[in-house]
Amino acid sequence: MKSSELFTRTFKQAPAEEVSKNAQLLIRAGYVYKVMAGVYAYTPLGLRVIENIKQIVREEMNAIGGQELIMSSLQRRETWEATGRWDDEVVDIWFKSKLKDGTDVGFGWSHEEAIIEMLKTFLSSYKELPINVYQFQTKLRNELRAKSGIMRGREFIMKDMYSCSVNAEQHEAFYQSSIEAYKKVFERVGLGENTYVTFASGGAFTQYSHEFQTICDAGEDKIYMVPSTGEAFNEEVAPAKAPALDSQEDQKPLEVIDEPGVIGVAAICKQFDLRPNQTTKTMLYKADDGTVVAAVVRGDYDVNEDKLKAVLGASRVRLLDEDTIGQLTGAELGYAGILNLPDTVRLVVDEACEGLVNFETGANHTGQHAVQVNWERDVPRPETFYDIKTVKEGDRHPDSGEVYTIHKTAEVGNIFNFGIQKSKDTNFVFTDENGGQQYVHLGSYGIGVTRLMGVMAENFSDEKGLVWPDAVAPFRVYLARLGDDEAVVRSADTLYEELMHEGIEVLYDDTDRRPGEKFADADLLGMPHRIIVSPKTVAADQYEYKKRTEQSSTTVSKDDLKMLLTR
Amino acid sequence: MKSSELFTRTFKQAPAEEVSKNAQLLIRAGYVYKVMAGVYAYTPLGLRVIENIKQIVREEMNAIGGQELIMSSLQRRETWEATGRWDDEVVDIWFKSKLKDGTDVGFGWSHEEAIIEMLKTFLSSYKELPINVYQFQTKLRNELRAKSGIMRGREFIMKDMYSCSVNAEQHEAFYQSSIEAYKKVFERVGLGENTYVTFASGGAFTQYSHEFQTICDAGEDKIYMVPSTGEAFNEEVAPAKAPALDSQEDQKPLEVIDEPGVIGVAAICKQFDLRPNQTTKTMLYKADDGTVVAAVVRGDYDVNEDKLKAVLGASRVRLLDEDTIGQLTGAELGYAGILNLPDTVRLVVDEACEGLVNFETGANHTGQHAVQVNWERDVPRPETFYDIKTVKEGDRHPDSGEVYTIHKTAEVGNIFNFGIQKSKDTNFVFTDENGGQQYVHLGSYGIGVTRLMGVMAENFSDEKGLVWPDAVAPFRVYLARLGDDEAVVRSADTLYEELMHEGIEVLYDDTDRRPGEKFADADLLGMPHRIIVSPKTVAADQYEYKKRTEQSSTTVSKDDLKMLLTR
Repeated sequence: MKSSELFTRTFKQAPAEEVSKNAQLLIRAGYVYKVMAGVYAYTPLGLRVIENIKQIVREEMNAIGGQELIMSSLQRRETWEATGRWDDEVVDIWFKSKLKDGTDVGFGWSHEEAIIEMLKTFLSSYKELPINVYQFQTKLRNELRAKSGIMRGREFIMKDMYSCSVNAEQHEAFYQSSIEAYKKVFERVGLGENTYVTFASGGAFTQYSHEFQTICDAGEDKIYMVPSTGEAFNEEVAPAKAPALDSQEDQKPLEVIDEPGVIGVAAICKQFDLRPNQTTKTMLYKADDGTVVAAVVRGDYDVNEDKLKAVLGASRVRLLDEDTIGQLTGAELGYAGILNLPDTVRLVVDEACEGLVNFETGANHTGQHAVQVNWERDVPRPETFYDIKTVKEGDRHPDSGEVYTIHKTAEVGNIFNFGIQKSKDTNFVFTDENGGQQYVHLGSYGIGVTRLMGVMAENFSDEKGLVWPDAVAPFRVYLARLGDDEAVVRSADTLYEELMHEGIEVLYDDTDRRPGEKFADADLLGMPHRIIVSPKTVAADQYEYKKRTEQSSTTVSKDDLKMLLTR
Repeated sequence: MKSSELFTRTFKQAPAEEVSKNAQLLIRAGYVYKVMAGVYAYTPLGLRVIENIKQIVREEMNAIGGQELIMSSLQRRETWEATGRWDDEVVDIWFKSKLKDGTDVGFGWSHEEAIIEMLKTFLSSYKELPINVYQFQTKLRNELRAKSGIMRGREFIMKDMYSCSVNAEQHEAFYQSSIEAYKKVFERVGLGENTYVTFASGGAFTQYSHEFQTICDAGEDKIYMVPSTGEAFNEEVAPAKAPALDSQEDQKPLEVIDEPGVIGVAAICKQFDLRPNQTTKTMLYKADDGTVVAAVVRGDYDVNEDKLKAVLGASRVRLLDEDTIGQLTGAELGYAGILNLPDTVRLVVDEACEGLVNFETGANHTGQHAVQVNWERDVPRPETFYDIKTVKEGDRHPDSGEVYTIHKTAEVGNIFNFGIQKSKDTNFVFTDENGGQQYVHLGSYGIGVTRLMGVMAENFSDEKGLVWPDAVAPFRVYLARLGDDEAVVRSADTLYEELMHEGIEVLYDDTDRRPGEKFADADLLGMPHRIIVSPKTVAADQYEYKKRTEQSSTTVSKDDLKMLLTR
C-alpha cells in the first residue's frame, strides 16, 4: 500500500489523558483511534495486526480440531439465570438494555452460558463427542475503570473456545493439547520466551486453572517463578515457604498486657516495640460445613482464603462477624488470638509461625494482647503447620526450596476446567454407550486478541516507536524513497511492484516529505524491515536496508534484499 | 471437513415460531441458531457463507480503493448529538446503556457520525482526499418487530463504506465507481440477474439515493420497472402517469350537496354512487417557506409528499391541523376541495385529474361536497398539472410511456450522497488549494452481509432445501460414501484427500447413516456439487456426480470429476 493512499497519519503526541504506553504508541502511529476510555477503533494498520494475530490463533485452534462459529452480542436474560450470572451482584460488568416490549437483554461479556445453550440443541450422544468450538467475538464489559489502553478495555476482541468431553480423561487430553496450541500461538507472535504457563485460581471443580502470563511492565499481575524450572504461579495461588527466621532468642516470660484500642499489626508493633514478624494475625472463619476456624499467619503475611479452603476441604469460607466473634470468644473484634481460644475452634496455623519465639498474639479478651508467647509453654503447638498465607517477596517454593523470582506480567491466555459443574447447572447432558444420561465435561479457553496486541505494543517497542515481529506486522516492509528524482521514483516504484508480486506486504512511503520525517515514521510505525531508495543507492544500483531491531543499515543488492525478506 | 467431526446436524422441523423461510431453512440445515427474535448465531456452516460473502465484498471494495478498518460498537452520546440523532424521537432503534459512572453509551446501529468524528482527526488537507473507508460491523438495532429471519434482524453484519471527496465531481466519480463495484458483488454472489439499481428517496441534499433491490418474494419493498430498459424505481419515488380515463361523458350541471358526516373517498363513493376515480382528494399543507398548498390527487391515489416537496422546491411540508384549516376555509376537516378555495392557497393538482369530467370535490363548507364539477366551468383549470401521487399498479413511466412491471424486492444495498449537509452538521472541513476551508463531500454505501445471505437462502432454495452457488457455499462439494465396505471407504477417503489437496472444499459425509438420510442432507445443506461413492461406483471405477441444481446424476471418471469441479 502507498502511504499517499493510506488515510492515517502519525502524531507527535498522544492525547493527554491517555496514560497507557500501548495506547499512546498505537494512537501516535495511527493504528488505533480512541472512542472513549477503554474503547478503541482500529484503522487499516491496526486491523491488519488484529487479523494477523487472529489468523495465527485460528490456525492453531483448527489444528486441534476447533470449529469456528460466531455467537451473538445480544444475550437473553434466561440464558444466564440458570447459573445465577444474570445478577449484577454476581457479574458486575454487564451492559444491559431492553427491547421495545420491555424484555431485558444483555450484551455479551462472556459466551459460556450462551454457547452451552446452543450446543444443547445439537449434541445428544456420546458418539458426537468430543467437540470443541471457538469464536472471535467482540466482548462488551462495563469495567469501572479503563486505563490500560487496549490491554483491558470495555470493548475488545477475544478468542473464546469451549470443549465438550464425555469424561475426565477425554477432557484432560484436550486440555493438554490446548496448552500446546497456546504455546505455539505465543511462540508464533514472538512472545514465546517471555510467556509462562502459570497455575491460577480454580473454581468449584478444580484446584487450579492455568493462565498464560507474559512478562510485561504494564501487566496487572505478578507471577512467582521457580528459577531453575520456570514453573510459575499466580500470586493468589503460589505455595509459599517463609524464609527461616534467626530465632536463637531465649524464651522470655509470657506477658498479657491490657492496652485497649491497640488493634492491627502496625499499631501493635508500635505499641509493644515489635517487628511484624514477631506478631501473629488471627482471622476467625466459618467453613461451609459449619466448622469454626482460627486461621493464624505471621503478622507480616495475609491469610489466603483459597489456600485455607484447600486445607479445610471446604468450598466456601466466610469471616465471622463482630457479634459472632463476641459470642464465641467473649472479646470484641481485634483481640482474637491463639491464647484462650475456645476448644470448639479449629486452629490452623501457617508454617511461617512454626519457628516463632517470644511472639505476640491476641488474648481473646477485649483490650488484651499477649506478648512473649511461646509454643507448648503458653499455647499448644499444632501437630501440623500449613501454608495458608499469600506469598510475598523472598518466599521459597516449598517443593524445590528455591526462592521465587517475581515478575510483573500480563495475562494473555487462560484455560479452565469446569468439570461437570457447569453442565449440572445448565443440565447439559449426553446419552452414554449404555443409554444412560451423563453430564458433559466442559472446558473454556480464552485468548484476548486485542489485549495480546497491546502487550506486544508494550513489549515490542523502544523510545522511537513500535517494533513489530514479522508475523503480526501490518506490512513487513517500510519502503521509502528520498526525493522525487525520476530515477529514484522509477527504482522505488519498481521495487514496490516486485515485492508485492512476491507476496511481500509493503507500505511504500511515496510522499514528498523530508527524509527525517520518513525515518521517524519508519521507526514509529515499526515495520520489521526498512528499505531506502535514494539518489545515492540508485547510483550504486543498491538499496539501503535496515531491520527495525538493528541500529545501523547495510547496502545490499536487489537479490540480497529479496533473500533477506523471503528467508 | 468430515461430517462426523462437524458438531451441527440437520433438523426435520424449524422452531414453530420461526415464520421466515430463510431462517426456517438455515435452522433446519444447521447454519444458524436462533438466540431470540431477530438475533442469530452462525455455526461453522453459516460462518463460512458469511466469510465467503465478506471476502467478495472486500475484494470489490478494495478494488475501488476502499481501506478496511473497524469501529467500535460502543458509541458516545456526544458523537450523535451534533446531528440530533442521539434523540430516541429521531432514531427509535437505539440500544442504550450506561457506564458505571452514569455516562450514557449507545450501541452502534450505524457508524456515520462515529466515522466522521474519527476521520476528522486524520484528514485536514485537500491533498489527502479523496479517500474511502469501510468496515464489516455488527450493527445492533432495537427493531420493534423481527420476523424476517436473518433478512432484518436486531443484530446483523453490515459492510458500511464512507467516501470523502473535495467536490461534487470527485464525489460523483466515486459514487459511479461504487455502483459498478456493487454490481460486481451481486453478480459474483449469483444475484446479478435479479438485482436492480433503483432510484430511492434522497435526503436534504439530493433528490434521489440509489438502492440495489433483488427480486424476492420475502422482500419488504416493491419496485416499479420500465420493461424495455430495466430502469427501476422504489415505490416511494416512482414517477407515475395514470392510465387515461375514457371521458367522453357530457358535462352535467354542478351540484353542491349538503350531506354532513360524509368524509373520505369510500364514504363519498357510497353516498353519491361514484367510483373513486370520479372523486378528488384535497390535502392542505404548509411548506417550509410559509406557502399554504392544496395538493389534489384523484380519489384512487394518495399524495406523495416527497414529490410535492420537489414540485414546491420545499425541504419540508406538513399537513395543516384542524384549527388552521377552519380559519383558512371556514370548514371542518374533511370538506376541503377545489371549489371555493381561498386565493391565498396555492393549488397543485396531480396529472391524473387533468382529464376528469363531472368529478367530485370538497366545497370548503362543513357538510358540503360538490359533484359533477368540471374544470373551467366550475373551478379554474390549472395551467400545469403535476405528478404528486404515489404510484400504483397500472401506472406508466412518464418518459417512456411504458406501463411499469411491479416486483416484490429485498433491498440488498444502498448508496447515498450526503453532499456537504452532514459535514456542515459535524463541521468536517478540509483546507483547499488556496488555504480556504471547505466542507467535505460525503457519501455512504451499505451492503447487509447477513441480509444478503438471507436473500440468497430465500431465492436459492427449493422444496428440498438450500441451493448455494459455488461462490458462497460453505463447501463446494458434498461427498458421501454409501455403506462401510472397505473399498468404498478407501475410495471415498482417497477422493476426499485429493480434492482437499487441490484446494476444493469438501464436506465429507463419512457417517454410517442410511443412503436416504445422506441424500436428504445433501439436498437440505445445498452444496453445489454432490459426489456419491458406493460399491457400484467403486466396482466401475467411477463416481456418481450431481449438481444441486439438476435433477439427475451422471457417472463420471475421477479425471472428469476434477474437470467438472475446477472449471
